[in-house]
Amino acid sequence: MPKQTVDSLIHAKWIIPVNPNNRVLLNHAIAIKQGLILDILDSTLADKTYKSSKTYRLDSHAIIPGLINAHGHASMTLFRGLADDLPLMSWLNNHIWPAERRWVSDEFVADGTELAIAEMLLSGTTCFNDMYFYPNITAKMAHKHKIRAQIMMPILEFPSAWADNAEEYIHKGLALHDDYRNHDLINIGFGPHAPYTVSDESLERIRVLADELDAVVHIHLHETEQEIEEALRQGGERPLQRLDRIGLLSPRLQCVHMTQLNKEDINLLQENGCHVIHCPESNLKLASGFCPIAQLMDAGINVALGTDGAASNNDLDMLGEAKTAALLAKGVSRNAASVPAHQALRMATINGAKALGLDASIGSLEANKSADITAINLNQLIDQPIYDPISHLIYSTCGQKVSHVWIKGKLLVEQGELTSLDTKALQYKVVEWRDKIRIAENQQSMQF
Amino acid sequence: MPKQTVDSLIHAKWIIPVNPNNRVLLNHAIAIKQGLILDILDSTLADKTYKSSKTYRLDSHAIIPGLINAHGHASMTLFRGLADDLPLMSWLNNHIWPAERRWVSDEFVADGTELAIAEMLLSGTTCFNDMYFYPNITAKMAHKHKIRAQIMMPILEFPSAWADNAEEYIHKGLALHDDYRNHDLINIGFGPHAPYTVSDESLERIRVLADELDAVVHIHLHETEQEIEEALRQGGERPLQRLDRIGLLSPRLQCVHMTQLNKEDINLLQENGCHVIHCPESNLKLASGFCPIAQLMDAGINVALGTDGAASNNDLDMLGEAKTAALLAKGVSRNAASVPAHQALRMATINGAKALGLDASIGSLEANKSADITAINLNQLIDQPIYDPISHLIYSTCGQKVSHVWIKGKLLVEQGELTSLDTKALQYKVVEWRDKIRIAENQQSMQF
Repeated sequence: MPKQTVDSLIHAKWIIPVNPNNRVLLNHAIAIKQGLILDILDSTLADKTYKSSKTYRLDSHAIIPGLINAHGHASMTLFRGLADDLPLMSWLNNHIWPAERRWVSDEFVADGTELAIAEMLLSGTTCFNDMYFYPNITAKMAHKHKIRAQIMMPILEFPSAWADNAEEYIHKGLALHDDYRNHDLINIGFGPHAPYTVSDESLERIRVLADELDAVVHIHLHETEQEIEEALRQGGERPLQRLDRIGLLSPRLQCVHMTQLNKEDINLLQENGCHVIHCPESNLKLASGFCPIAQLMDAGINVALGTDGAASNNDLDMLGEAKTAALLAKGVSRNAASVPAHQALRMATINGAKALGLDASIGSLEANKSADITAINLNQLIDQPIYDPISHLIYSTCGQKVSHVWIKGKLLVEQGELTSLDTKALQYKVVEWRDKIRIAENQQSMQF
Repeated sequence: MPKQTVDSLIHAKWIIPVNPNNRVLLNHAIAIKQGLILDILDSTLADKTYKSSKTYRLDSHAIIPGLINAHGHASMTLFRGLADDLPLMSWLNNHIWPAERRWVSDEFVADGTELAIAEMLLSGTTCFNDMYFYPNITAKMAHKHKIRAQIMMPILEFPSAWADNAEEYIHKGLALHDDYRNHDLINIGFGPHAPYTVSDESLERIRVLADELDAVVHIHLHETEQEIEEALRQGGERPLQRLDRIGLLSPRLQCVHMTQLNKEDINLLQENGCHVIHCPESNLKLASGFCPIAQLMDAGINVALGTDGAASNNDLDMLGEAKTAALLAKGVSRNAASVPAHQALRMATINGAKALGLDASIGSLEANKSADITAINLNQLIDQPIYDPISHLIYSTCGQKVSHVWIKGKLLVEQGELTSLDTKALQYKVVEWRDKIRIAENQQSMQF
């Protein structure tokens, strides 16, 4: 029988498809054609079945679905480490918000997003959700670098460099949604910032529009105790109750943070099929509280994973985030069997895809899904011994070990290097930003 | 004036001496002579003052004191990832203890310790405390690879391959202490395993001997709720009260884990100058509880940092451990200002030196201290921007970025490679162990 021609054939020591769960395929290969996974089969059989102009033999590597970062603010990567170890309100009021007012522009968002995309690709992330000002620029950068993205139009009642009021945020957002209506890698959703920054009226409008456009809604929710207390004081409702009253609870809703949850909250999430986006490192760093993910998953609620912005993390490494999530869940639930490694990997892949409404095409390595693939090289002495590659990926590696990344079959990282992003030029721009921002910050802190 | 000759001159972009606290020296150099730090001064001045046969120009690097891993079981690195995501008692009873009974031998300890030393050096650790069977082999390996170590003679009432009863453990341990009495890098202390495995009689003997020999005592203590409950049930005392009654609480005592602490416990630790060794990743992974380190440090108690064994971590990366410690402390204390980056760095360096009783010679970069030094290369795009190198080291890097390591002035890691350990040969041995252990474990699990 003649061999079938494919675009790429990736052989690997271990392939971890994520679906079915906790499965490791030894010495298998993935055949890719027209950006899709055509077949996953034994390596020897693959060589007999397929011929390919591009063949990769990753003899010491584990291959997983591309990681999905379900919550972040890409351009804030330019503020990485600008202000650490501060109480939340001082961090926001005296550092982050003044810095945003001073610096955020289309140029800032372009360079910051490019830096974030570089870091995400190099650490194995192939798809990210983003919520920030100038989402048009974020989308442009994602398009340029061929990374998959779900980009939120930011919506709040307060003015920023991007828009003056909720109406303008929505107006500009809808135009952006229209621009990307048929894009293969990018889709636009609604990003009401938080319950305390968006009015009932705007939330109602968002509900109607999201239903009409079948678009996701992404919101910071139940992030801190203070948020709940203020909401109860001002309106007599917990934020989740308020969203329920407005009709926003649905499988289209992505609830980010969720560190303050009672039994009724969990019931509401479960009954309405809402998704929870867990950001453990940011929640720890800002002392926001603990999201009870073991309890949520036991209730059948889909929990995905996000790094949040680099200003409160301080990196965009999803393998590191999955380790933190798996460890923290055990401590918080007081059960060492909670969130095993394979479940943490699901949070960073298929659960992210479900939350973003993209699980028909990404999140696992299966025939007919998009070839969004990450390879991690485990050839070093310090990667030994390996008894279970899934455990090893979650507990003993980090993004630094990612060697190859494909999105829709296109190779974007090869041997740990970006294939088509000029890192030198970008590094130069980032250092320029750092110098400008640092001088201004120092001047400001001298004033106080 | 003629230039003074030194052995090595290390120029670096940033030098972080740890003492004084939270200080960063820009474009400075360290002059090393006969294994000691002779001087730390401005780079330009250094070139005018000193000539050196070996000069390093680390233009994109941060230099810190060598990291000190204050609690571990080096040879258990061969069990890395053998059994994860299990409740503590099932992990111990059904996996770790049977595997130890089956595998632990002088050969196992030699190869496992060598693997751990390689991983520790490559991730910037220059000194480690160790508690395990065959401490004579651990000491031999530390000596061979010229890494600094404080090695505990294990003491418990139960037989193992190393000794039959407490008397024999102590007898063999004292002989080992004698062998290393005058060693420049290695010292031997007392390692009673835990309150529940060592009798009052043995603990009293250890107190007398430790006083006599001026040696440290290192013990797993208040690790789990169950430990406290059992102790109260059996003897009516909390373990710390029992150690107090026996007279073991002193600045010589290293209390490892300490996740269960009430106000009286904290007072006892504080009044007696005991050290706490915090192992956050192991405590999380085994769901042991949370050590309240912010509260301990507020009370003036010295808190050092350890990875614990790789079987419950699953790596020996002290920079990663410091990040986890800094983040977790904020979550647990509900204060985002708790344990700032510079304090986390102190835990991993000078606090470790204090706990080990070695702070006169290591733990900070100061004239007349030993030249135990770690350099981290921050030249990559994803290391940008850097506003504060200390924050960057704790929150945004990991051991993978360590480029150079010196112990007592001797270069042991250069450009991320070990200078004098044959990693290929070692990797081959480790894979052999993995194959043997994995087959036996699989057979065993099929039996049940």
